Amino acid sequence: MNPLDANFNNLVQPLLTDKYQVSMCYGYWRNKKHEEPTVFDLYFRKNPFKGEYTIFAGLDECLKFIKNFQFLDEDIEYLKSVPDYQAIDTEFWHYLKQLNGSPIQLSALEEGTVCFPHSPLIRIEGPLGLLQLVETTLLNLVNYASLIATNAARYRIAASLGKHKECRMLEFGLRRAQGPDGGLSASRYSYVGGFDGTSNLLAGKIFGIPVSGTIGHSFIMSFRGSQELTEQNTQSHKYLMNKKTGKEENFSVRCLELKNTLSRSTIHGWGLLSDSDLSELHAFIAFAWCFPSNFLILVDTYDVIKSGLSNFIFVAMALLEFGYKPMGIRIDSGDLAFLSGQANKLFTCIANHFKLDEFNNLDIIASNDINEDTLICLNQQENSITDYGIGTHLVTCQSQPALGCVYKLVETNKVPCMKLSSVPDKVNIPCRKSVYRLFGRDNYAILDLICMYDEEEPRIDQRLLCRHPFVSEKRCYVTPRRVENLLTTWWDGKQLKSSPTLVDMRKRCQDTLNYITQDIKRSLNATPYKVAVSERLFDLLNDLKFSLTPIGELS
Amino acid sequence: MNPLDANFNNLVQPLLTDKYQVSMCYGYWRNKKHEEPTVFDLYFRKNPFKGEYTIFAGLDECLKFIKNFQFLDEDIEYLKSVPDYQAIDTEFWHYLKQLNGSPIQLSALEEGTVCFPHSPLIRIEGPLGLLQLVETTLLNLVNYASLIATNAARYRIAASLGKHKECRMLEFGLRRAQGPDGGLSASRYSYVGGFDGTSNLLAGKIFGIPVSGTIGHSFIMSFRGSQELTEQNTQSHKYLMNKKTGKEENFSVRCLELKNTLSRSTIHGWGLLSDSDLSELHAFIAFAWCFPSNFLILVDTYDVIKSGLSNFIFVAMALLEFGYKPMGIRIDSGDLAFLSGQANKLFTCIANHFKLDEFNNLDIIASNDINEDTLICLNQQENSITDYGIGTHLVTCQSQPALGCVYKLVETNKVPCMKLSSVPDKVNIPCRKSVYRLFGRDNYAILDLICMYDEEEPRIDQRLLCRHPFVSEKRCYVTPRRVENLLTTWWDGKQLKSSPTLVDMRKRCQDTLNYITQDIKRSLNATPYKVAVSERLFDLLNDLKFSLTPIGELS
Repeated sequence: MNPLDANFNNLVQPLLTDKYQVSMCYGYWRNKKHEEPTVFDLYFRKNPFKGEYTIFAGLDECLKFIKNFQFLDEDIEYLKSVPDYQAIDTEFWHYLKQLNGSPIQLSALEEGTVCFPHSPLIRIEGPLGLLQLVETTLLNLVNYASLIATNAARYRIAASLGKHKECRMLEFGLRRAQGPDGGLSASRYSYVGGFDGTSNLLAGKIFGIPVSGTIGHSFIMSFRGSQELTEQNTQSHKYLMNKKTGKEENFSVRCLELKNTLSRSTIHGWGLLSDSDLSELHAFIAFAWCFPSNFLILVDTYDVIKSGLSNFIFVAMALLEFGYKPMGIRIDSGDLAFLSGQANKLFTCIANHFKLDEFNNLDIIASNDINEDTLICLNQQENSITDYGIGTHLVTCQSQPALGCVYKLVETNKVPCMKLSSVPDKVNIPCRKSVYRLFGRDNYAILDLICMYDEEEPRIDQRLLCRHPFVSEKRCYVTPRRVENLLTTWWDGKQLKSSPTLVDMRKRCQDTLNYITQDIKRSLNATPYKVAVSERLFDLLNDLKFSLTPIGELS
Repeated sequence: MNPLDANFNNLVQPLLTDKYQVSMCYGYWRNKKHEEPTVFDLYFRKNPFKGEYTIFAGLDECLKFIKNFQFLDEDIEYLKSVPDYQAIDTEFWHYLKQLNGSPIQLSALEEGTVCFPHSPLIRIEGPLGLLQLVETTLLNLVNYASLIATNAARYRIAASLGKHKECRMLEFGLRRAQGPDGGLSASRYSYVGGFDGTSNLLAGKIFGIPVSGTIGHSFIMSFRGSQELTEQNTQSHKYLMNKKTGKEENFSVRCLELKNTLSRSTIHGWGLLSDSDLSELHAFIAFAWCFPSNFLILVDTYDVIKSGLSNFIFVAMALLEFGYKPMGIRIDSGDLAFLSGQANKLFTCIANHFKLDEFNNLDIIASNDINEDTLICLNQQENSITDYGIGTHLVTCQSQPALGCVYKLVETNKVPCMKLSSVPDKVNIPCRKSVYRLFGRDNYAILDLICMYDEEEPRIDQRLLCRHPFVSEKRCYVTPRRVENLLTTWWDGKQLKSSPTLVDMRKRCQDTLNYITQDIKRSLNATPYKVAVSERLFDLLNDLKFSLTPIGELS
């Protein structure tokens, strides 16, 4: 098998499912219902993060899973050993063993598309027994992927409200993610949601996502155990190619000289302190010596203002003298708005005083427990952050760590199916369906209309009555300027439709977010996007609900 | 390689790390610091879930990762392709390629041990360059594992406060977990934390965890598309071996007869309604026919009271007549306390009226969005739940989806290292250290004492001064009755100390939880457990803090 055709995680396999799926499958098989032609919808009922939109993701992994679906002999052996399965008809194991994805048709939104509650993200058709078996794995693959893509998209939107609309957004969450795959999936799907890169090398290797990173505190701290950096101690000196002279020159001594000169001067009221930590300076020099063209350093190990920034400036100025452009700093603690502002002021002073324009274009990366609220709050203040490194809260989706996608039987043997609930909008919308996105003027999306599959497609410039799926009196007329059929068949049982790349998905996400109105994308109190059903579907849904709901008897 | 020696997830590999680790490693290597003997501590600063204890987990996976540490050629090729790495000394790639776990010593708590902030969970020793590379992966493997084990332990404790102290706790979270590995890790570590089983078949296969599960709504719903169940329609009839008569008998008809008889009677004021859903009854019969000895059925597809419970009773009574013991019901929606109570009342009525004692011992499994607060709340009311099936909130750790373990350089080249912070307890405790748990009367743990490695081990019945690591005036004398040295060397560079099984870890968790006092385990406003340092370590910590902290200059 071509590794590109396989799921990136070896754990994605038919046995990655709930036991009850196999029990039910046996129930269908023994009752001769396993071949009944069936339709399941995968959808969610509520947008995450108190928001009004969601980004659909995880499809590519679902398709690979379906395409490669096949129990191993050892899986069957394991199942045979499960205590509850001791008494079951052994013919069933042969049935399981020969199952594969060929009787399945899978239609779905394009990965990266913005989507809304109650409307199928995936419509899967095939024999009841097989479709039951794949439920849990599909949900697992879509739930977290869509959650993290949505979270990333929200963070991106929150960051874009500030001074630097085009902030670079970097995902740094691997260490705090929910397991190795939580980390890798987070890198993958936060890229789809609009992030620019990740610190995760494996994500770089497997998915080709741009990788980035600076250094950590331990690098700086480790220089406390090293010999002292002084002009006299030649062992501590680093020689670097001066691109202007073409010669290897003593870089360490030049940094020390700059420290001595600058710390005596007071540039525009800014005292560069002479007591910046020497072991930190040593570490900065050592790192700049290794990466002279990529000098991006962490400045908060001891004290940003009293030590880190000064040491950065000494080394950055020396680098410029040697013909290398320094990249910038990362701040990982403290008041990020204030510190980034101070850093920026200082850089501007240096740029003006020494006529070093490069100091006007330095990166100031902020990290440390950033979430959507922090981004909004930082942007309500003055700040000079150019890039964000975001970990924990992005990847674990702190404000809501699970998306509630469900997989519901909507039709079997051509009979529409419905699960009742005391909560009106927990009722599923029955039948095999199509979903159309209707656009108005300026190409903004007006609403998504769910129709029965055999209904005629809505036509441009033709007025349609659209109904709220659960509230009878809520209706509206729509005259669409453009209609998009949202569900594409990606797997027809024989081959995969060529699937979009990660870059395509990322673009799809931005494009579809662009065509929904601002009020839907607001962080707080956003306006719900409308999801409607056709007249015919509404009638069916309503009739079925009445026929299934028993009338209570109170006494 | 023996599969038991490998990480269960193929993504656990040296490249599952942050890019900056490789950059730093290059920095060390080029500055000839990569071989410096170094000690890192892995620890956390705050217990999760507003609690006062944590369960340490993930060690076994860390050990396998260290033991098998080895970059592949293709990893090196990938790293060479990273833009920032174009200019680096190519000798470095040879150094990386030959790295393996043999220069590492890894000491840690036994997996499953209850643990507390600031005290090392893992102490890792070896050359600086290599230890830097493994940081992210170790953190990733410990953070979520410990978080979920702790969450599970808390849920178990919350459930044990009710009427059924010995409730069975089942993990049902795969579909909502953060990725495939999030699901599998959740099954593994919630078992360590005290759960009894999982729905996840792959966890059953790989880890041998007991699997369990019932059926889902779709099974019930699918019988709406089937032919009708009536006494006349023989095609709908199932024949089941009657263990009492030794003959295959018409099970469906017997269920229908019971429905007819019982729905006319009023047993102790309990009307078993005649309008229970026939397609639901059909589904129950079909499932019982497949699993007559494991009849555990979901009763809330249409209506628990008006339909599900009645249908369960018809089928359960028929099963008893046929010589099979029914197992019980699952309720997945509505008021779980009320519905379980109603079910229990009904079962008691049936047991008394028909002298069927089996109805007194039925399982009542509750599921549906249960978290720790729900468990506490359910147990403050009357309820008759015997088992819990818990998914989303258990596996995603809703109330705090990340544990903040950190990995800090505490010593390099025999020099103690410290990272300063404006927040006093974010300062790390320097040096290579030992940790002792001191026990008092009745074998309760009094405190954990962190000492410098070369200090003498605390002795039984000898009075010791223990100091708060960060608050100078907080001190206490302890005279221990028992002393446990908490850090064991599991990997010495050559071989793994035989590691505990999952069952051992689960036992270790319960044992160590048993020896801390109740007030520390309270769900709300628990008392903090004491973590102290020795006099000598306190002095060193304090001296270092003063020597590193610059004095501010305000004007």
